[in-house]
Amino acid sequence: MSTDDRPLASAASALVDGRRDPVEYVATCHDRIDAIESDVRAWVDGPKPRTQLTAEAEALADRYPDPEDRPSLFGVPVGVKDIFHVDGLPTEAGADIPASEVVGPESEAVSRLVDAGALVAGKTVTTEFAYFDPGPTRNPHNLGHTPGGSSSGSAAAVAAGMVPLALGSQTAGSVIRPAAFCGIVGFKPSHGRVPIDGVLALAPSLDHVGLFTQDVAGATRAASVLTDAWRPAATTRPTVGVPDGPYLDQAEERGRDAFEQTVAALADGGYEVHRVSLFDDIDRVNDQHGRLMAAETAQSHHDWFDRRGDAYGPEMRALLKEGQGVSVGDLADARRFRTRLCERVEDRLDEHDVDVVVSPSAPGPAPEGIDDTGDPVMNAPWTTTGQPTVALPTGHVDGLPVGVQVTARFGADERLLAWSDGLADSVRGTV
Amino acid sequence: MSTDDRPLASAASALVDGRRDPVEYVATCHDRIDAIESDVRAWVDGPKPRTQLTAEAEALADRYPDPEDRPSLFGVPVGVKDIFHVDGLPTEAGADIPASEVVGPESEAVSRLVDAGALVAGKTVTTEFAYFDPGPTRNPHNLGHTPGGSSSGSAAAVAAGMVPLALGSQTAGSVIRPAAFCGIVGFKPSHGRVPIDGVLALAPSLDHVGLFTQDVAGATRAASVLTDAWRPAATTRPTVGVPDGPYLDQAEERGRDAFEQTVAALADGGYEVHRVSLFDDIDRVNDQHGRLMAAETAQSHHDWFDRRGDAYGPEMRALLKEGQGVSVGDLADARRFRTRLCERVEDRLDEHDVDVVVSPSAPGPAPEGIDDTGDPVMNAPWTTTGQPTVALPTGHVDGLPVGVQVTARFGADERLLAWSDGLADSVRGTV
Repeated sequence: MSTDDRPLASAASALVDGRRDPVEYVATCHDRIDAIESDVRAWVDGPKPRTQLTAEAEALADRYPDPEDRPSLFGVPVGVKDIFHVDGLPTEAGADIPASEVVGPESEAVSRLVDAGALVAGKTVTTEFAYFDPGPTRNPHNLGHTPGGSSSGSAAAVAAGMVPLALGSQTAGSVIRPAAFCGIVGFKPSHGRVPIDGVLALAPSLDHVGLFTQDVAGATRAASVLTDAWRPAATTRPTVGVPDGPYLDQAEERGRDAFEQTVAALADGGYEVHRVSLFDDIDRVNDQHGRLMAAETAQSHHDWFDRRGDAYGPEMRALLKEGQGVSVGDLADARRFRTRLCERVEDRLDEHDVDVVVSPSAPGPAPEGIDDTGDPVMNAPWTTTGQPTVALPTGHVDGLPVGVQVTARFGADERLLAWSDGLADSVRGTV
Repeated sequence: MSTDDRPLASAASALVDGRRDPVEYVATCHDRIDAIESDVRAWVDGPKPRTQLTAEAEALADRYPDPEDRPSLFGVPVGVKDIFHVDGLPTEAGADIPASEVVGPESEAVSRLVDAGALVAGKTVTTEFAYFDPGPTRNPHNLGHTPGGSSSGSAAAVAAGMVPLALGSQTAGSVIRPAAFCGIVGFKPSHGRVPIDGVLALAPSLDHVGLFTQDVAGATRAASVLTDAWRPAATTRPTVGVPDGPYLDQAEERGRDAFEQTVAALADGGYEVHRVSLFDDIDRVNDQHGRLMAAETAQSHHDWFDRRGDAYGPEMRALLKEGQGVSVGDLADARRFRTRLCERVEDRLDEHDVDVVVSPSAPGPAPEGIDDTGDPVMNAPWTTTGQPTVALPTGHVDGLPVGVQVTARFGADERLLAWSDGLADSVRGTV
């Protein structure tokens, strides 16, 4: 596959208008997977067999002989994180629970992609139940490093050029962080903007459906299929806020240096940039996010954990024990804290007349080893507030990708992606 | 008002077909209220002024000159428990919180009644937030006794012939118990069968909308308006289950004796009656109901209690403190316990081939005094399972009304009311 074939938007356009044939495109993806999957291990038991995916591509081609009729993701192979139910494929969730106990109707997000002509290439590796106990996936940029998590396989599969689109999910930092570690675009829409039905719940009030692509144009094309009532927005230039204070201090020194280079480049490139004091009480923000996540996850997993507690990994087990002990009063406090945090962030953006906040996608580049998927500490506040966020690559630190995350107001998903189109060009190669 | 005018179904029929005039009917209700409200105190600050209710009745009459067009509750004055939002009336909820903080769109249940031609006569007294801290209402059968709670005013208003229909709610025993204490029919539909929107939440997974009428025909007429997709059911004769064991032992001796007289009368009257062992672990059923109620109420009231804790009465305060301390793990256990209890009850009904369970509506007649609204212990299990339940009067013990509650399978609301029509006749006057 040439580099030009990898971005979703250009590949999908070529497939829809007939410049590329879906059977041949699927074969190209499969070739790429065959070449590197044994190193990267993005897929759960590998992708679908070549014969099966080819047959699906042929059936699709037969169904839509006329380019005029073809839906916008016609013939696009996609990777699906293995916590989404997909008809015909088991959901294993990176866990030791028998797949027969993890069943349900196909997730709405998957159905929307399939209705738009996408072909599910297979299930991608997730950490156990989308928390922190890692799977076998490696970072395509350096096999000695984690791809990040929990959407490890989806990020790695897109980054390695195996598929142009993959679905993930984020409850703390599971889309934005792996996107950054793998040097690709990740998009977490506003909470609830893409239906979460058919996706195994971790903490429902924090769980977001997300996606990975090579570029912003691809993310926009996929988002327009996944969300209800997508309204195209004009590309304009946003006023940029950059957080100040203890939130930013959570980044590693090399991560902060890289981030400041990018911020300087934005200002040099003509963007109006304001320093905005946000998350001054970051320890409390993180604590309350952790409490909410633990308590809601303990509720989601209560029955399984009771019956099959031995099957859980150490990180998930610790989370569930913590969550079970949270009191109803403390849980209500955490929810109220979130409501006020959302109001507070909104007020700050208004006060500083800022359209988007740009911050580091992760404390630094991907850590070494695959036992630890890295720290979601830069992402958790934006998951708590449910605001739409895009990960954009900025360059490399110590030979590994780094990036920034761009966050807009709740519900402004369309404008965020429109703004990100220009921002992506301005930040690329600044580190 | 003659006794014949009090039952909802006959009054509504006469109003719809023009044998009675809504202005005159409203005046009759108002006369009755004027005569006894100072003793009974069913209404919050009295009913709507006579002039206002008369004007509403006149407007309604002008709107529907043709009997053919009149909806099924045309001109029927109704009492609405003061935890339901009603456009134009404050919601005070028997509490010391300013009404300006207790606002919201009109409850769906009220809107459905109004759309069906009912006239809201006013708000009826509730215990504080529909829990146990009582209001000033007295039992119309004996002013020295409680009418029961929490839907105290609604039960008393219907029992005293002030209005033929009133709305209540039940989270433990707040419809069935006051209906029994006041000697009228109470109906708690299956959980969720009537939308709870616009009603102040206590414990959402237990909160039911309910209603009070003089007889089963009236309950059926109101239920057909309140529920989605009501399907009339044929009147047949159900197989009756009677609970055995520790659940029944919760009743007072005089209450049990009265109950057994009614059961004997049913058998004599040709009903097939089976003793069914139900709720053998009644202490655990009650504990788990209490935990669920405390924990969910603590969540519903978290913000108010935090800001206005001093305004709460002692019962509610104790409940909220208890609820705040429940852990997420224990809450999940309580929810799972409920799921299993529902399955267990369903299995028992199947096993014994029983259509309805008949049990005492309360441990005995209404306690003396109005500081205590009585014990919901006979009702709580059926609130936990969410099964539809009707309170039917059976007679008097020590000069005060007593009755039985009839419970059917979840969702069998229509059949329950159809069965209850015959059952009501068979149990009436048996004590």
